[in-house]
Amino acid sequence: MRTYQECIPCFIRQALDAARMATADEKAHEAVVKRIAILAAELDMRESPPVMGQKVHRLVKEISGVEDPYKEVKKKSNEMALRMYPALRRKIAKTTRPFEMALRLAIAGNIIDFGAPGAFWENDLKDTVDECLKADFFGNSPDELQNAVKNAVDILYITDNTGEIIFDHLLIDQLPIKKVTVAVRGAPIINDATMEDAECAGLTDMVEVIDNGSDAPGTVLDECSNNFLDRFESADLVIAKGQGNYETLSGIDKNIFFLLKIKCPVIARDIGGEVGSMVLKNSQSLVGGEKYATV
Amino acid sequence: MRTYQECIPCFIRQALDAARMATADEKAHEAVVKRIAILAAELDMRESPPVMGQKVHRLVKEISGVEDPYKEVKKKSNEMALRMYPALRRKIAKTTRPFEMALRLAIAGNIIDFGAPGAFWENDLKDTVDECLKADFFGNSPDELQNAVKNAVDILYITDNTGEIIFDHLLIDQLPIKKVTVAVRGAPIINDATMEDAECAGLTDMVEVIDNGSDAPGTVLDECSNNFLDRFESADLVIAKGQGNYETLSGIDKNIFFLLKIKCPVIARDIGGEVGSMVLKNSQSLVGGEKYATV
Repeated sequence: MRTYQECIPCFIRQALDAARMATADEKAHEAVVKRIAILAAELDMRESPPVMGQKVHRLVKEISGVEDPYKEVKKKSNEMALRMYPALRRKIAKTTRPFEMALRLAIAGNIIDFGAPGAFWENDLKDTVDECLKADFFGNSPDELQNAVKNAVDILYITDNTGEIIFDHLLIDQLPIKKVTVAVRGAPIINDATMEDAECAGLTDMVEVIDNGSDAPGTVLDECSNNFLDRFESADLVIAKGQGNYETLSGIDKNIFFLLKIKCPVIARDIGGEVGSMVLKNSQSLVGGEKYATV
Repeated sequence: MRTYQECIPCFIRQALDAARMATADEKAHEAVVKRIAILAAELDMRESPPVMGQKVHRLVKEISGVEDPYKEVKKKSNEMALRMYPALRRKIAKTTRPFEMALRLAIAGNIIDFGAPGAFWENDLKDTVDECLKADFFGNSPDELQNAVKNAVDILYITDNTGEIIFDHLLIDQLPIKKVTVAVRGAPIINDATMEDAECAGLTDMVEVIDNGSDAPGTVLDECSNNFLDRFESADLVIAKGQGNYETLSGIDKNIFFLLKIKCPVIARDIGGEVGSMVLKNSQSLVGGEKYATV
């Protein structure tokens, strides 16, 4: 997905949020905002938004001297998700459609996003879970993903955020784990999940987990490690979580299922859905795909 | 009021809104956004936000070649307010506290603002009117303004937006009109009221109306005409409507009552209130003044 004009004020808002997360120094906030404004003025709009997102957050680190401004927020997100985890497992154990239930919960977890505007609280997460248990899927049906999983030989599951990765564990449990590799980001960026979070989610004990070698808030293939690119190349099915992975991979010719909550109007327009939609969308399906109500 | 860091993404969002209002040419939108980003990077944060607002809208005019991008929206706002006007007059005629009722309605009219984020519809205006009939005043009490009016010899009433100016008519009707001068902006800027709107509101037939000689979306005294400055100087009471007038006049040593709906978190913080508050605040009262429920 290209960068749209609305993304520019959003980059600056994000830069300010991140600068405030990193330091209380108002001069540093101003410096970050103004330097991002200069970068925005030179922006190549054909690039995907996470390319600029990466610049924003590198600059915040450089100016504030804080390597991981979201460290505390990430810790809390994992703790919050871990508190909910046993009850979510019970939901899956009780249903006759465990794959679909786990899929709904994995998408619900995508609401944990400190790159999107607005504060985020534990009650929002609980509300999103309740809502995702009933919502229509936008794009494809759970059966289509389940069939794709059945037919796949080599599955790459690209995670998005901390906290959310604990919800991903529920869906990964429903996959043929011997065929699955899980990928996380290569370095801290916003609240995206890294290897540490995969460990916290218990994924490293059950499945192969690799990092993508990059600190972009998405999957910018030009930036990823050869190890990641080999795995991406060899996978015949990619499951990609969240907006950042959608933004960076939506134009790639590959069998990808995007799983996300739409949190921004630009992505809503690009994907043909609405803000708040629960998206399950194959990269080869049409833009503005139909709605599937399968519960 | 100074410019805060949050104002910077907001300027860029406003520039994009205005550019889209002026032209369908996406290249022009991008040019506006990027040139405003450069201006933002050089911004003197000690200036009030309308100083930058003025630059934003001058640039939109220059790039699009459209002198008054909000012309249609302004026409519709006046029409909308005029449709409501007879019913609002009846409300005032029926109450035992006509000054307070007219004051509430004049503040309600301040919701008509195309500089603030989000679309705006006739139902929003009706909802705001209903809400302002019951809401607590933030800052001072209506009696305090009414006493100030009684004691004043020379009143300057500075309007804010089109549509809203028709609501202002209701309050101006309650003032000793021989002592009153009404001021509008000197040239089109966002949806701010100009002389044409004062005529549309029927104000020019009842009271002296002057323009301030400036195209800033507020009252930037350095930019105003000598005629306006003389009237401002000689007035012993100023009634100033809306956020733009608050932002530009809140630091001035003068007996000013600010009447506005708070529509942005930065102004909320500066004024000590909350977004959505119905503000009636004397410039000489303390920041974060008490709440008055007088109905």
